[in-house]
Amino acid sequence: MKILLLNPNTSEAMTARMAQAAAAVLAPDTRLTALTAARGLPYIASRAEAQLAGAAVLETLAEHQAGHDAAVIAAFGDPGLVAARELFDLHVVGMAEAAMLTACMLGQRFSIVTFSRKLVPWYEDAVHQARLQDRCGGIQAAEGAFRSVSEVQHELEAEIVSLAVRAAANGADTVILAGAPLTGLAARIRAAVPVPLIDPLAAALGQAQALVRMGVRAPEAGRFARPGPKSATGLPPALAAWIEHREGEEPDEAGR
Amino acid sequence: MKILLLNPNTSEAMTARMAQAAAAVLAPDTRLTALTAARGLPYIASRAEAQLAGAAVLETLAEHQAGHDAAVIAAFGDPGLVAARELFDLHVVGMAEAAMLTACMLGQRFSIVTFSRKLVPWYEDAVHQARLQDRCGGIQAAEGAFRSVSEVQHELEAEIVSLAVRAAANGADTVILAGAPLTGLAARIRAAVPVPLIDPLAAALGQAQALVRMGVRAPEAGRFARPGPKSATGLPPALAAWIEHREGEEPDEAGR
Amino acid sequence: MKILLLNPNTSEAMTARMAQAAAAVLAPDTRLTALTAARGLPYIASRAEAQLAGAAVLETLAEHQAGHDAAVIAAFGDPGLVAARELFDLHVVGMAEAAMLTACMLGQRFSIVTFSRKLVPWYEDAVHQARLQDRCGGIQAAEGAFRSVSEVQHELEAEIVSLAVRAAANGADTVILAGAPLTGLAARIRAAVPVPLIDPLAAALGQAQALVRMGVRAPEAGRFARPGPKSATGLPPALAAWIEHREGEEPDEAGR
Amino acid sequence: MKILLLNPNTSEAMTARMAQAAAAVLAPDTRLTALTAARGLPYIASRAEAQLAGAAVLETLAEHQAGHDAAVIAAFGDPGLVAARELFDLHVVGMAEAAMLTACMLGQRFSIVTFSRKLVPWYEDAVHQARLQDRCGGIQAAEGAFRSVSEVQHELEAEIVSLAVRAAANGADTVILAGAPLTGLAARIRAAVPVPLIDPLAAALGQAQALVRMGVRAPEAGRFARPGPKSATGLPPALAAWIEHREGEEPDEAGR
Amino acid sequence: MKILLLNPNTSEAMTARMAQAAAAVLAPDTRLTALTAARGLPYIASRAEAQLAGAAVLETLAEHQAGHDAAVIAAFGDPGLVAARELFDLHVVGMAEAAMLTACMLGQRFSIVTFSRKLVPWYEDAVHQARLQDRCGGIQAAEGAFRSVSEVQHELEAEIVSLAVRAAANGADTVILAGAPLTGLAARIRAAVPVPLIDPLAAALGQAQALVRMGVRAPEAGRFARPGPKSATGLPPALAAWIEHREGEEPDEAGR
Amino acid sequence: MKILLLNPNTSEAMTARMAQAAAAVLAPDTRLTALTAARGLPYIASRAEAQLAGAAVLETLAEHQAGHDAAVIAAFGDPGLVAARELFDLHVVGMAEAAMLTACMLGQRFSIVTFSRKLVPWYEDAVHQARLQDRCGGIQAAEGAFRSVSEVQHELEAEIVSLAVRAAANGADTVILAGAPLTGLAARIRAAVPVPLIDPLAAALGQAQALVRMGVRAPEAGRFARPGPKSATGLPPALAAWIEHREGEEPDEAGR
Repeated sequence: MKILLLNPNTSEAMTARMAQAAAAVLAPDTRLTALTAARGLPYIASRAEAQLAGAAVLETLAEHQAGHDAAVIAAFGDPGLVAARELFDLHVVGMAEAAMLTACMLGQRFSIVTFSRKLVPWYEDAVHQARLQDRCGGIQAAEGAFRSVSEVQHELEAEIVSLAVRAAANGADTVILAGAPLTGLAARIRAAVPVPLIDPLAAALGQAQALVRMGVRAPEAGRFARPGPKSATGLPPALAAWIEHREGEEPDEAGR
Repeated sequence: MKILLLNPNTSEAMTARMAQAAAAVLAPDTRLTALTAARGLPYIASRAEAQLAGAAVLETLAEHQAGHDAAVIAAFGDPGLVAARELFDLHVVGMAEAAMLTACMLGQRFSIVTFSRKLVPWYEDAVHQARLQDRCGGIQAAEGAFRSVSEVQHELEAEIVSLAVRAAANGADTVILAGAPLTGLAARIRAAVPVPLIDPLAAALGQAQALVRMGVRAPEAGRFARPGPKSATGLPPALAAWIEHREGEEPDEAGR
Repeated sequence: MKILLLNPNTSEAMTARMAQAAAAVLAPDTRLTALTAARGLPYIASRAEAQLAGAAVLETLAEHQAGHDAAVIAAFGDPGLVAARELFDLHVVGMAEAAMLTACMLGQRFSIVTFSRKLVPWYEDAVHQARLQDRCGGIQAAEGAFRSVSEVQHELEAEIVSLAVRAAANGADTVILAGAPLTGLAARIRAAVPVPLIDPLAAALGQAQALVRMGVRAPEAGRFARPGPKSATGLPPALAAWIEHREGEEPDEAGR
Repeated sequence: MKILLLNPNTSEAMTARMAQAAAAVLAPDTRLTALTAARGLPYIASRAEAQLAGAAVLETLAEHQAGHDAAVIAAFGDPGLVAARELFDLHVVGMAEAAMLTACMLGQRFSIVTFSRKLVPWYEDAVHQARLQDRCGGIQAAEGAFRSVSEVQHELEAEIVSLAVRAAANGADTVILAGAPLTGLAARIRAAVPVPLIDPLAAALGQAQALVRMGVRAPEAGRFARPGPKSATGLPPALAAWIEHREGEEPDEAGR
Repeated sequence: MKILLLNPNTSEAMTARMAQAAAAVLAPDTRLTALTAARGLPYIASRAEAQLAGAAVLETLAEHQAGHDAAVIAAFGDPGLVAARELFDLHVVGMAEAAMLTACMLGQRFSIVTFSRKLVPWYEDAVHQARLQDRCGGIQAAEGAFRSVSEVQHELEAEIVSLAVRAAANGADTVILAGAPLTGLAARIRAAVPVPLIDPLAAALGQAQALVRMGVRAPEAGRFARPGPKSATGLPPALAAWIEHREGEEPDEAGR
Repeated sequence: MKILLLNPNTSEAMTARMAQAAAAVLAPDTRLTALTAARGLPYIASRAEAQLAGAAVLETLAEHQAGHDAAVIAAFGDPGLVAARELFDLHVVGMAEAAMLTACMLGQRFSIVTFSRKLVPWYEDAVHQARLQDRCGGIQAAEGAFRSVSEVQHELEAEIVSLAVRAAANGADTVILAGAPLTGLAARIRAAVPVPLIDPLAAALGQAQALVRMGVRAPEAGRFARPGPKSATGLPPALAAWIEHREGEEPDEAGR
């Protein structure tokens, strides 16, 4: 099967790290393509930024989804998840939703630990969007300063371990290490925390593979059936073509 | 006070109708500016379209919000509401949220009646986003075909009346007539329905005025404090400037 | 429009202060009449007292509501709100409900701060009655002693500020200053608290004006349609007349 | 033990019937005193009437509760329940709450069947006050006209049976026959309905006896500790004395 | 009436203590039979143990329930409660469910205090099974070591009192002393805790008596109607006979 | 990886069919072992039967789980799931929970369709145990008679298709075909239903593989850490040994 990993942040380095980490959780017959958003923010950290990133996710998928079985939106917070799932026919998986649903099979209550307070309101909305507030024991963020988002998992490792240990002591059966920059951290610190640590990228790839292998059809009814054709103004060509149901056509001279 | 009415659909005719309907619910000292989205879809009807429209709302507000006390996002479904409320310091009001909160003071349970089935999943998400599922007795959509969105409130008037009457019979204390194209219909059919009919535009303008008159400060803490400055790639100039906290500066030669 | 402000406490001084504070939040075309309960308690502070006050609210409205567009029950806790809304045809607004619904447009979570622990169970019931527990981050009460209910907002100002600041630090996006004796405090301390402070009287008057301006009809069906005529024993004349649907009639010699 | 049965309606006939029905569910060592409200309505059927009845319940209990171990408020809808429980030290049991809690031990979901549509909003509020909405499969009311409230259980027996049978078919594990005028009906029709029928008076007396036999202390803390002394204006003497903590004193010459 | 008290733990001493404590809460016309589980664990403390104990409860009831009006499963956590209620026609009461439902009539919020941390996840599940999470203010467990389960209520008395006092200070209106080994403790320490203390055995016996006195029929429909006959493999004779609807038959030579 | 498929029903034919169906959803590097319960019922259909089956699941796992990475309990209703997850260190997956969590990524609301009304209360409890009531649009059961559980998916195929189509029309985004005897049906009828059909066995195997590949540690804290050693009476040897933490030891002569 073929899975598209779509990083809605503009950082290529983060994409590379995620692609590398992905290898460990793919079945022998799974192939991964990793993409980085062409525009937006180096690291999404607010609901406003997620609104913009969600639009960029649709644009990117319109251009690149053909030929894939599933796409993973590689930002905890799942920008554009519902919209993409509605608009396209391949499976679309979000890191936050996948991590939380996976956590539900490992315990009654999960906690979320992340590296910056700024992310908390956005992650709260992701919990609410997944309707899993009753399973969530809280979202804790490290307070420590850090120099680089790409190194934050090393810079704040000790504080994050300590937050995870405390979350377990306070009733969490699992701890989700949230935020794409923490990818790979779970494997490194697992011996230090007495409950399972969930890496959202690993969870998302696991869920994407599970969905594809199950072999269900794309919906023609329900909330996620593809909307009918519609004309749009001012959108990028591939997205406009998809929305207008012209995605199979040759682009005209104007590049549409 | 000055209120900005922002139509996230690209239809100027709809903006004009809303501006006209607004007059009846403004206090003598309220001034309204009405704007139409420059890009997007003539009528938003899906979550994917709302994702794109939400981004357009941010762009438009970045350009036009200065000098206003409140903005009303004039599409039931509230595209970009949370993001705009976080990003800007003026009050931002959504038609769906305002209509539902207003309904909570007129009865225990509201129903939502609209003119097309396609809108229902999006409106369901709006109910969920407002955390008011327990107050919502359901969303009913007319099944009738119609030729023009701008005339749909006339074309399907009889069916909409009948849905509203049935909603009241089934336990709704109020009925919200949802969808910007229904603006003004509530006043016309109120004698035919035995419970209060809520016009979301009227509700939103009422709430915007209530918020402004209350005179609260903009938050410097909490989930809706303005995010700190951040650099962005590929965004329209006014939005990029606002996100980078350069909104007070003179644009440079490149137009930023 | 004409709004009735009904203080269900027997303190005239409190009524006067509320009438004065109201001026700042009324539109140019709004007129206010302020009334004080003739019997009951100087300051309601328990569910038992609220049960009695709610009955007094019905009695007072029966006597005075004619000719008004809306009534505000001016005690946080909203004694008699549901009953009054059912019994009379004008809009009835409660300070607690209005404050909480208004808070929902300013943030995800509100906290309530008040001046005495004794009030907490009653206010909890008000939150539950408004079905907004999921939005409420808690109710905090000052512990300090005070000499006079009418001066408590000055006597305990420092502690109340400190509770509000702490509520914001603990995740409240807004803070409601609850209890009629705190009317006007929000405006005075707003610079000291980093999130919006909601004055329930201001919120209630804002909502009353919004409802009246919206121009909806009184319900003839649903949970808030006026009950049919019924004979009663031992009630005050105006209330008995209203319940018996004789409110338009000349009183007979017995004063009914 | 001694139990007070307090009918908040003014109908003596209904009190007599309830006292008679009570005999079957009392343990050999339980004594019952039955009282009828002195003022109010012959049959409470709205939230406004319940507000007034709740005040009357407090007045009556202040006068008559001394020497009893528990009081049953004998109207489904439980007027004044929370207030009475807070104000007095004996156990106070409501027919609605007791019936619903009892139903929770007989099945997953109960339905409520009553004899008039007018009662439904009030009963809905009782379900909500007991926080048992998730257990309630709905409230169904007979549509048939009837001549006399005291004979309604005979006049509408067939329709009530049919509603109960249908409720069971629709997923109710038990059916509560709600409304004091239905007292005794459950025993008569139990063979006709395939699930347990709950008589709220029987349930309330069962719960009152269970509470008394358990032998717990009256609370000195928590939401139901008796409020401290307070002066009141315009209340009946016994209630004023109780609120002012003068209940043990000799009445003065003014009758207080 | 005749009530069966079934201790699903294998400790006879605990059964004896419960039988003794029961005397104080039985009506003059109630007779109690106490039984101890023949196999299982001396003290159930986990969900796995409760799964096994629940099966043992069914086996024991199949053998001994004939001739009784109700059975009390005497372990907080209610092993086998739903299954037994479904399978048999007498009333089946669980100590946890009964204690929590009883607490609902004594306050808005209860807390649960127990003697060992190990019990907490199981008790949490019991709260969830009773759908009473919203009423539960938390489960607190003593941390102290103890030598003997049968003496733990004496060994840890001081710590349990202190937990109950703190629970009251934190908003609990009642405190449930959970775990069969605490039977009888509530009566001993009631003066030391300012809110009602609920003894689950007393609550369960109160509820069992209330149910029996109410005189309802056994369900022939709904979730708790007895399942039809079915053949089984490898079950104890009495349980197999009951499941196969052969319970009235003479056992055959093979002892079935 | 090695996965154990444990059929808690005693039907070997059903185990064989499931093992065959499993092949299609296993990754190239996954190996499956299928087991049938030695005692119990040919087909579990009630909560009482599930209580017994859950005990049998623990017994079987104690004997056979060694050397496996995950176990799937192959009965919708998930008998023994929580207990097994607590007691053992390998991943334990239930068909009901896995199917519902998987459905959460394919739509907002799922419906459950099964082949017999008798199963509904048990499946309702499974939905509640997974805390997913808000996502469940209902459980519909075929009414048709059938001769053989192993052929029911063919005998009632037309009615099941029709129930699934109606569920989609009523708002289900996915339909779960519940009950082990329906294994394989989803693939056969998928063209006839316009929304994705979820085969619980496929979902459970997908989730088991996702969990194993994620590589998390077994918990040493939290609700699912293995309980400490404890002595038991009357349990089968392997289960007793595991509970007593003697599972690594040589069995003694008595076969323990």
